[in-house]
Amino acid sequence: MKVVKFGGSSVADAGQFKKVKQIIKNDKSRQIVVVSAAGKSDSEPIKVTDMLLDLEQVVASGDDADPLFKSISERIIKIRDDLKLPVKIENDLQNISQQLQHCSHDYLISRGEYLTAKLMAAFLGYYFVDAKDILIFDEQGLNYPQSQKRLLNVLASHTQLVVPGFYGANENGSVHLMPRGGSDISGSILSNLVDAELYENWTDVSGILMADPRIVAHSQKIDSLTYDELQELSYMGIGVFQEEAVRPVREKHIPTAILNTNQPEAGGTLVVSAHEEKKYDHIVTGIAGRKDCTVITIRKYQLNKHLEVLQKVLSVFQKFDLAINSVPSGNDGFSFLCQQCDITVHLPVIIEKLKQTCGVDSVEVNQNIALVAAVSLQLSKRPAIAGKILNYLDNSLIHVRFVFQEGSDLKIVFGVNNDDYEKTIKRIYRESMEHHLKRISA
Amino acid sequence: MKVVKFGGSSVADAGQFKKVKQIIKNDKSRQIVVVSAAGKSDSEPIKVTDMLLDLEQVVASGDDADPLFKSISERIIKIRDDLKLPVKIENDLQNISQQLQHCSHDYLISRGEYLTAKLMAAFLGYYFVDAKDILIFDEQGLNYPQSQKRLLNVLASHTQLVVPGFYGANENGSVHLMPRGGSDISGSILSNLVDAELYENWTDVSGILMADPRIVAHSQKIDSLTYDELQELSYMGIGVFQEEAVRPVREKHIPTAILNTNQPEAGGTLVVSAHEEKKYDHIVTGIAGRKDCTVITIRKYQLNKHLEVLQKVLSVFQKFDLAINSVPSGNDGFSFLCQQCDITVHLPVIIEKLKQTCGVDSVEVNQNIALVAAVSLQLSKRPAIAGKILNYLDNSLIHVRFVFQEGSDLKIVFGVNNDDYEKTIKRIYRESMEHHLKRISA
Repeated sequence: MKVVKFGGSSVADAGQFKKVKQIIKNDKSRQIVVVSAAGKSDSEPIKVTDMLLDLEQVVASGDDADPLFKSISERIIKIRDDLKLPVKIENDLQNISQQLQHCSHDYLISRGEYLTAKLMAAFLGYYFVDAKDILIFDEQGLNYPQSQKRLLNVLASHTQLVVPGFYGANENGSVHLMPRGGSDISGSILSNLVDAELYENWTDVSGILMADPRIVAHSQKIDSLTYDELQELSYMGIGVFQEEAVRPVREKHIPTAILNTNQPEAGGTLVVSAHEEKKYDHIVTGIAGRKDCTVITIRKYQLNKHLEVLQKVLSVFQKFDLAINSVPSGNDGFSFLCQQCDITVHLPVIIEKLKQTCGVDSVEVNQNIALVAAVSLQLSKRPAIAGKILNYLDNSLIHVRFVFQEGSDLKIVFGVNNDDYEKTIKRIYRESMEHHLKRISA
Repeated sequence: MKVVKFGGSSVADAGQFKKVKQIIKNDKSRQIVVVSAAGKSDSEPIKVTDMLLDLEQVVASGDDADPLFKSISERIIKIRDDLKLPVKIENDLQNISQQLQHCSHDYLISRGEYLTAKLMAAFLGYYFVDAKDILIFDEQGLNYPQSQKRLLNVLASHTQLVVPGFYGANENGSVHLMPRGGSDISGSILSNLVDAELYENWTDVSGILMADPRIVAHSQKIDSLTYDELQELSYMGIGVFQEEAVRPVREKHIPTAILNTNQPEAGGTLVVSAHEEKKYDHIVTGIAGRKDCTVITIRKYQLNKHLEVLQKVLSVFQKFDLAINSVPSGNDGFSFLCQQCDITVHLPVIIEKLKQTCGVDSVEVNQNIALVAAVSLQLSKRPAIAGKILNYLDNSLIHVRFVFQEGSDLKIVFGVNNDDYEKTIKRIYRESMEHHLKRISA
C-alpha cells in the first residue's frame, strides 16, 4: 500500500485534478490519497487557504464577509463543475457559512483541505474520510494507537481513501490544525499508521536538486539520499520537508518519493533510510547554505577555565533573543554565529554589553559571512572528501574563513565571505560532477 | 647586545660552566647572562632548587636542617673549587644559613640562582647584579619603567653582567619569586629592557623538534618558526616556554634562539616575529597533540535557540572545576572536550546532572580521544594544506572523528582515537617531509 500526498498546486484546478487521477490510475497500490487545499495555478492566483485566512480577518473586523466567501465558494464550485462531479458541495459551503461568526480558527482554516478532498474523493471514486475522524491529537501530539485503530476500522470497509491533509481532531472532537505545510505531516503519519511501502509526495518540482538552481543553472537532481542527508540539507535551509513530516515515515523506515504532478515521467528524488554503497556516484549528495551571517568571537586568556565568562556571554545573547551556533575559533576564544538580520540593529549594544559585563579580553565581529555545507553520507567515512573540497576551493582562490566537520556528521561546513557564496557552491557542484568517488580512491 | 640565558643543566657543574664560558667568549655581544640554579647533570642527581624546597620542609617540620644545608653548600663549593674561583661563597652560604629560620619562601628558594650567578660572574669575569636590585614587581606585575631605569644605571658602569634568574624584588625590597621556570622569564624581561638584538636560551636540546621524538624517531628540528606558531604548539602541550616568557620579547619583536649548551655547533631553533616566505619548505612547521581526552556532546532540538540549556550545562562543568574546550558537533548539538584525568571519577555524576538538570535531549560521551594539531603559518592562507593532510590520514585509514580550523588560525586540529594518536603524528610528519609546498601548488 502506498500513501500519496498531493500539494496545493497539484489540486489547484480541474486540469490538475485530471493529472492526479492519471497518476492514481497508473498504480493500484496508491490507496490512500492526502490532499492539500487547492493552491495556485496559472489561472488561480491565490491559495484557498490564504483566502480563508483573509476571510477570518474580515469576519473579525466586522466587515461584510459575503463577497470573499462567495469567491471561495465559486472557486470550489468551478472545480466541481469543470469536472462535472455529482457532489452537492453547496451543502458543505452553506454549513461553513453558517458557522463563520463563531467557529474556531482551526476549523475555518482547515476547510480548504476538507472541500478539496471531498471533490477529489468524488473524482477518483475513492471513499472520503474526514481527517478529524481518524487523526486524534492529545497533549503529547498524535495519539498513534487511537488514530491507528480508527484508520484500520475505516480500511476494513473501504480500501481506497481520500483524506484531507493539514488537520485532525482534538480529544474533544474539535478540529486540530497542524503547522502550515501540515499536509506533508498528514501523509507521513498515515504512511506510518498503515506501514506503507512508500510515501509519495507529489509537488510541482521533480525532486530535490543538488544545488540551488538560481546559483547552479541546470543543477542535477538528487536521485536518492538518506533521511540523515535530507535532514542536514533541511537544517542548512533547503526547504523540502519539515522535521515533523519526516519523523513518522523515518521511524518506520518507509521511503519517501518526491515527485512532480506535472511531469510524472521525469522521476524524482527517493529518500531512504540507508543507502546501498553503489549509489554513490558523486562526491557530495547535495549542497546548501546561507548568506548574511555574523560571527562574534570573544577571547579571554585561558577561557577554557573561565566558564563563567561563557555563561555571561550566553546571557547577553539570550537577552537579545538570538539563535546562536558555535563555529571554530582560535585559542582562548569562542565564536558564535548568528543571522545578520537578527543582530544588526542591536550589534553595537551587544558588543558593548559583552565588553562591559562579561569579563572578556576582546570582542571581534565578522559580518557578511556565508555558510556552505556539502552533505554526503560518505563524508562521515572518508575525510579525503573534505580534503578534496578544500583543495578545489583553494584552487579557486576562495578564502575559507573556517571549516569544520564532526566525524559522525554527514556534512562539512565552510565559512566564506558573502561575496564568495555563489562561487563556493558552484565550485563544489562542478567538482562533485567531475570527480567521482572512484577517482578519489585512486 | 644579546641576552643569553643558561638553564639549570647548563650550569650543573664545573664542566658545564666551562662550556658556558666558551659560548660567551665566542661572541662579544653576549653581554647579559642570566643563569638558573645549578641543575641536574651526570654527576649531580638533584637540582639545587629541589634541595632548597626540601630544606624548607625540613626547617618547617623542626627537624635538623644542618645535614641538608651542608649538602647544598658542598655542591656550590665544589663548583667554586673545581673552577678554582677566588670567591668567598662561604660568606653567602653563612648568610643564608643564619636566616633559615625566619626568611621568606621566595628568599630561600631563589638562593640557588643567586649562588650560581655569583660563581658564574666570577668565572666569566662579568659583573654580578642581584636581580632584586633591578627587576621590581608591583601589583600589576613587573614595573617596566622602574626596572629599566635601574638596569640602565648598572649598564652605565658595567657592560657585561651576570644576573640570577627566577626572581626580582617587591616594592618593599623583599625577594619576589617568579613561577617555576622563571629564569626564562627573567631573560625575556631583560631582553625587553635593553631592546636586545637576540635572546638566546641555552638548554640541553638543540631547538624544538617538529614532532615528539618518542613518536617520530630522528624528528627534524624546526629551524625557525614565528611566535604565533610557537604559541599554538605550546597551547597543544609542547613545553618550550611559558606564555609569560614569550610576551616580553615578542612585544619588542626580539627573536629568541633555542640552543644546546652541550652542542652549540648543532644550531637550534629561531623564533621570530614574522617569517620570510622562502622559509616555508614543509607543509607544517610542527605537530603537537595530546591523548586521553573526553568529548561530551549534548543535544537538544533547536539548541541554538535554547541558550539557557547551554548555560546550565556550563554550570555543571563549572561545579566540577573542569577546563572545557569546544569542538565541532552535529546539528542541535554542542560538544565539549576535556582532559580525561580531570573528569573520569566524576563522569557518571556529571552525566546524570546534565541529563537531570539541564533539559537536554541526550548526552553522548566519547572517551579516549586524542587531539593532533598541525601548526603552520601557511595554514591560514592555504586551505589546501588542510585538505592534503586529510587526504593522507584517510589513505592511512585513520578515522578522523572531527576536524576544525578557524581561518585566521595557524593550526588545523584533528580528533582521532587514542590508538591512532602516534600513527596520525607519524603520518603528518612523513607527508610533511615528502611533500613540499611547491608540489602542493603544482
